[in-house]
Amino acid sequence: MVELGKKVMAGDVRSASRLIRNIEDNLPGAKQEIRKIFPYTGKAHVVGLTGPPGAGKSTLTDELIRCFRRKGKTVGVLAVDPSSPFTGGAILGDRIRMQRHAEDPGVFVRSLATRGTMGGLSKAAGDAIHVMDAMGKDIVMVETVGIGQQEVEIIHHAHTVLVVLVPGMGDEIQAIKAGVMEIGDIFVINKAHREGAGKLFKEITAMLDMGPREPGAWRPPIVMVESVAEPHEFERCVDELSDKIEAHYQYLVNTNQLGDRQRRRSLAEINAAVRDAILETVLRRLVADGELDRMVEKALNKESDPYTLAEQVAERYLGGSKASMPVAE
Amino acid sequence: MVELGKKVMAGDVRSASRLIRNIEDNLPGAKQEIRKIFPYTGKAHVVGLTGPPGAGKSTLTDELIRCFRRKGKTVGVLAVDPSSPFTGGAILGDRIRMQRHAEDPGVFVRSLATRGTMGGLSKAAGDAIHVMDAMGKDIVMVETVGIGQQEVEIIHHAHTVLVVLVPGMGDEIQAIKAGVMEIGDIFVINKAHREGAGKLFKEITAMLDMGPREPGAWRPPIVMVESVAEPHEFERCVDELSDKIEAHYQYLVNTNQLGDRQRRRSLAEINAAVRDAILETVLRRLVADGELDRMVEKALNKESDPYTLAEQVAERYLGGSKASMPVAE
Repeated sequence: MVELGKKVMAGDVRSASRLIRNIEDNLPGAKQEIRKIFPYTGKAHVVGLTGPPGAGKSTLTDELIRCFRRKGKTVGVLAVDPSSPFTGGAILGDRIRMQRHAEDPGVFVRSLATRGTMGGLSKAAGDAIHVMDAMGKDIVMVETVGIGQQEVEIIHHAHTVLVVLVPGMGDEIQAIKAGVMEIGDIFVINKAHREGAGKLFKEITAMLDMGPREPGAWRPPIVMVESVAEPHEFERCVDELSDKIEAHYQYLVNTNQLGDRQRRRSLAEINAAVRDAILETVLRRLVADGELDRMVEKALNKESDPYTLAEQVAERYLGGSKASMPVAE
Repeated sequence: MVELGKKVMAGDVRSASRLIRNIEDNLPGAKQEIRKIFPYTGKAHVVGLTGPPGAGKSTLTDELIRCFRRKGKTVGVLAVDPSSPFTGGAILGDRIRMQRHAEDPGVFVRSLATRGTMGGLSKAAGDAIHVMDAMGKDIVMVETVGIGQQEVEIIHHAHTVLVVLVPGMGDEIQAIKAGVMEIGDIFVINKAHREGAGKLFKEITAMLDMGPREPGAWRPPIVMVESVAEPHEFERCVDELSDKIEAHYQYLVNTNQLGDRQRRRSLAEINAAVRDAILETVLRRLVADGELDRMVEKALNKESDPYTLAEQVAERYLGGSKASMPVAE
């Protein structure tokens, strides 16, 4: 295990796979290895893909791999599976599909699921990206099914965020206003031969027009990807998309904004790590001394309530800052 | 605001709505009101419904409301929306659909979304259930789109968990093994007229047969719900389902297992509250004294790494228990 980090940095696929599996299983040794490789990370361009289930993200990822390989770049792909009891099967299938790149040493595809605590998936994703980065991959693509807070956190690990949509999903476009417009650097209308693609394009455009934009600021392009018109139409569209992805990175570099994205990434990682370290310690202690059981009994007997119990814990561990706060009404 | 809790306990709909909105917005006053009503909660039978998007949970909920009303029970419904940028629209639509019960004072339907921290949704859901419980609702149904850790946490607030599936979802059944078989008290095969219903039934049966089961223990029934064969087929099936739901509650009471479920609920609530209280305090302090910014800079400059930084925070706040632990390999 001691040499795992070093082997990863030498590009060894088996070691990288093993380290990612150890990260997934939350083994303490994995943390040590990540520490060792951490100083050598930060070179890869991290590209996030998010969008609703069925938007065709995996097919797109597959084709993007081909584009980047043609341009001479090495690629890592991380398919993040929220360990859904209901959607787990799909991503596994996609991963098998991407096997057409299995023989190519310049491509490294892994999926990541997680058990355990909230936020664990985001932390594991951040670490797995570091592994692929340390392996020397030029591009690391992270694919998530965009469903909530957890996935937004994961997407914060990316420098360039692709929001993948398909026509004909109805009301969803309204909901997009909520949180995705802000994080999207590039919008992709996939399956653009379908009815409603023009309408979707107009809606995204209208929303992009609404927000204030500094002169010279990046205007998220909308890339239409269709697959049925001509034989090579899909390839051509994805080529264009890969150009936009590179253009966005270049924009970040040219405008000194790459640092801001690195900062966002780092903040997401530190938040997750702090959460983990603090909660793990507190919950372990509460369980170890039987305090958690006593708290549950108190709540069940209505002697106390969860909020009061939690504040007592916070007070005990953190020195009563909560208790001394005035109660706002 | 002071009287909000009292008004809720008198069954006032507007006060209950306002309190749930305040919970959603995480207002400090809401916490105080929940504290007040907490001693008067614990009477409602909380029924959780989970399943993949498109399984027809809302139509089922709507019909279950009718069944329970016919049996003279009052009903609260909480539709939990993971605030998805992509699926937000759907649940809103469902909520409008359930408006056919809007005139009935024995029915109270609300949806719940959330912004902000991880785990916040589970805590808010627990509180909203308390509100409906305190209002005097006999049955509180909680509907989630089953997608991950967050929803599993929410479902822990229920005494009786319904897993709603539909035929023809392919590989998903394999993924069900992962986490849903353990939490399902009743399985529903919805849209059972579709091809593959028999196969799905057999697969669930096979999985139920696999696990060890104590003599006399609850065997989760599988209820087939179909809507096209005869005019009243759907109603008849849902009637049967409502009987099973009541039978499960009776089983919990008869075998003294209701306390275990209350304990599970309470544990979920306390976990969420502790997480919230501790993290809020720690993160607020880290932000307030500029420490978080300094941590980010250290990570960016590779002077340190997120794990080391997080452990330093844990050590400082919690007295170094982490630091003194041997590093497992």
